[in-house]
Parts: sequence; C-alpha cells; structure tokens
Amino acid sequence: MPNAMEHDLALLRRLADAVANAVRASSAESWGDELRIGADGTPTKRIDEIAEQAILRELDGVPGLDFLSEEAGFLQRGGERVLVVDPVDGTTNAVRGIPFYCVSLAIGRKRLSDVGSGLVMNLCTGDVFEATKGGGARLNGRPIRTKVSAKSRVFATSSLWPDDVPQPRGILRSFGASALEMCLVAQGAIDGYHYSKPILRVIDVAASTLIIREAGGVVLDKEGADLDLPLSLTPRFGLSAAANRDVARELGVLV
Amino acid sequence: MPNAMEHDLALLRRLADAVANAVRASSAESWGDELRIGADGTPTKRIDEIAEQAILRELDGVPGLDFLSEEAGFLQRGGERVLVVDPVDGTTNAVRGIPFYCVSLAIGRKRLSDVGSGLVMNLCTGDVFEATKGGGARLNGRPIRTKVSAKSRVFATSSLWPDDVPQPRGILRSFGASALEMCLVAQGAIDGYHYSKPILRVIDVAASTLIIREAGGVVLDKEGADLDLPLSLTPRFGLSAAANRDVARELGVLV
Repeated sequence: MPNAMEHDLALLRRLADAVANAVRASSAESWGDELRIGADGTPTKRIDEIAEQAILRELDGVPGLDFLSEEAGFLQRGGERVLVVDPVDGTTNAVRGIPFYCVSLAIGRKRLSDVGSGLVMNLCTGDVFEATKGGGARLNGRPIRTKVSAKSRVFATSSLWPDDVPQPRGILRSFGASALEMCLVAQGAIDGYHYSKPILRVIDVAASTLIIREAGGVVLDKEGADLDLPLSLTPRFGLSAAANRDVARELGVLV
Repeated sequence: MPNAMEHDLALLRRLADAVANAVRASSAESWGDELRIGADGTPTKRIDEIAEQAILRELDGVPGLDFLSEEAGFLQRGGERVLVVDPVDGTTNAVRGIPFYCVSLAIGRKRLSDVGSGLVMNLCTGDVFEATKGGGARLNGRPIRTKVSAKSRVFATSSLWPDDVPQPRGILRSFGASALEMCLVAQGAIDGYHYSKPILRVIDVAASTLIIREAGGVVLDKEGADLDLPLSLTPRFGLSAAANRDVARELGVLV
C-alpha cells in the first residue's frame, strides 16, 4: 500500500514540523530542566516535554494510532497501529548546545520489522530523512543509498570503543544521537555505526532502521541477525548498522 | 584599541557571510573534487577553493592585510597584519555530508598570541562564534564562558584516543572539525578537546584559540604551556583545550 504509507509519511512530516517549531519557539536555557522521571526510567528534560507535547497536540485530531514514546510510555488511542516516537534523540547534545540532535518518528504494528514509514528530522539543520517500506529512503526528497568509502572508512560509535572488540580500521567519530548517526549511514556519509552497550530502545531506532534498510544497508543485533524487536519500551539492546554486511564485519559483527 | 578590533570583526563577519553564500550557491556533489595540492601539502578540494575564492574576492578592496590560508599559502598584500584563514575546517565532513564544518578567520601580526580578533562560523547552522582580544567571546552576539560539567564531563577528541594517554572519565565525542570543537569548549557545551597527533596548523586554530581564551578557557601545547606559534603554515602540533587548567589535567596534560 504505497499510497497509505506516503499518507503516513505526510503525517510524520507534520509532526516533525510541529516539533521543530515548538523547539525553536522555546528558550534553550530551559531545555535542561528535569521535570520528572519518564516512562523509560530516565529524567524527562524540558526539551523532551516540549517536543512530545507538540506531537500529542498535532496528533489530537488523528484517530487510530496508539502512541509509544520515551516520556509518556505507551498510550492506548484505539489504534491498530502505533506511532513510535523519540521526541528528541540526542537530548544531552541539545541541552549542552552541541548542534547534533533530532526527532525520530515511525509508524508500525507490532515489531520493528513491520514499521512501514519512518522520518528523522535533524533539528539543527532541518534535514529530513524519510523512508517507506519498499519505497526507498530519501534525504530532503532525494533518494539516498548507503555507500562504502573507497579510501579510508569513517565509522561512528557511541562514546568509547569497547575494550573487548578490535577497533575497526578507519576514522572513528562520535556524535551522540543514534537516530541521526544511523541516518548518516543511510546517506552514505559514513560507512557504519556501532552501539555496544545494551541500552538502546526501539523508540531510538524505529525510524532510522527502516531508513537504513531502504537505503540498502543493514542493521544487525549482536549475533549478526537482522535487528528485530517488539514495539515496546522494555527491550534494551546494542546494534551495528553498516552500508552492507561486509562493512558490518569490519565492526566486529559476526555475519 | 577595542574599536579597531571591532572593526576587524565586522570585516571577518563579511568574509564569513561571503563563504556561507558561496558554499550554499554551489553544488554539494562537486565539493569533493580534488583540484590540486594546496600550499599546506594536502589536496585542495572544490569546497576549499570555493570558500577561499569567496574570501579573496571580498578582500579585494581591503588593503593592508596579508593573507595566510590552507590552499593559497602566504600572500603578501603589503600589510603589517595578516588574515589567517581556514576556508573550510572539517572538509571531510562537508564532502561526505556530515553536518559539522565551519570557516575560521583571524587577524594577527606575527604569532598566535597577538591575534586580536577571530571568528568561526558553523556553515551548517549559521552559528557565529567571535572574540576580540580583551573584549570577550560571543556566540551569535551573546557573551559565552567556558563551563565545567557538574555531573559527567563531555570531551571531544580527534578520532581515536591515543593508546599512551589514560582516557579521561566522561563521555568522549569526536566531530571532526577542530575549530568548531574548540568553540564548543568556549561555549561551555563540552569540557575539553584533545588533539594528540602533531598535525594541526595555526590556520586551524588561530580564531578558536582566541575565542576559548576570551571565554575563560585554556589552549595548551603538549608541555602544558599556553600554545603559541608563528603565523605560518610550517609548524605542526597537537593541543589540549579545556574549560580551565584543572580540566586540562583530566585530559592528561601536565600543567
């Protein structure tokens, strides 16, 4: 149903724009205020709240979509499908003033593997990554494909490289917002991304996983299988994302 | 001469705007074309050329300033002072599509320590960092100061942490554009920045060194002394930049 998924994508765009506007209209000095402990067990910062509320307001007139988010948890809204949201991925960056953070939005049913549409908006540059299942991935409306560097590889990683995994050959970067770093893989800007600690949640990666796969890349669990999970806040995991399976091997994944 | 330095800063703003406009007007697909070997011995990419030419055009009616840049090297223009330029810092990021690169512009006489004005513009977000000697540092017109994180420190580093230096406690990031990463220290967004390999050039850091120092931070050589160098392409060096000397110690600097 490509038309239905394009319709979903139009909704995701509206939600992302609402987040961008709400964040822009707010005072950056307040973004770090800790309001309470969110549904995922981490403190909800003001910027997370601003972004999530903007989405919920915009969603008000839209029936048939349940809601799963970092802060609110799961909201039953009488839907057969669920909107999977990280209102701000890279909250630490946003609060500190590091210009690398985004909103991540996806629509699925039960599992990561059935997500049909996903959108990640870089809230610092306005860049929009999006994909529909079977319909390919785009950056600002133009198709994107993963790419393998001919010369030196560039990988991104979550903070430190783990001691027990041999470091890949190449340049290592670390930007601090998984969804956006995964989109850099989809875009062919970097060769791969590795997150070793088992602390990611499905809300972080629901959109970017679809975007990478639709761009020709792979997103793998630590056993080297295609990452798949229920759409729930409970599972915590690490992952490797790469331009292809050969590059994933360079990240130490057994595939 | 605060007025003279503010006057210089106005020129640097004009030059940075010229770079931003020229880069925006060009095709990103062409940015990675290698044109020739630049004055610093590395290949001049199309985006470097576009940025440098924009500066030289804008500088055409401005007498009394020599010119030192990554690509053109040193141009004698009958000046007592020299404009020290990195047309694009983070060329690799720009060419790959990673949204973290900038232009760096400073005016000095003979040495890093006599630089009187400096400006760094983030070419992805438009953020402008600037400082005049003794006049403080600003981000988009608002005064900035370095900051030490109360909870966990965040450091940036050039690619991998060196094996022979104990890793500091905290989160390690790596963004791939020294001038901009140093400005994040000035802004208080991160606690420190470490570049271990002796390959930086004065053009990379002339502006950001002034900006950090005017924001209350330190920029040190590997002996722990305040970094100082002639305004020339010849010296290559590493550095540690930090919110203060105590934080520099956490980066393994002997101060």
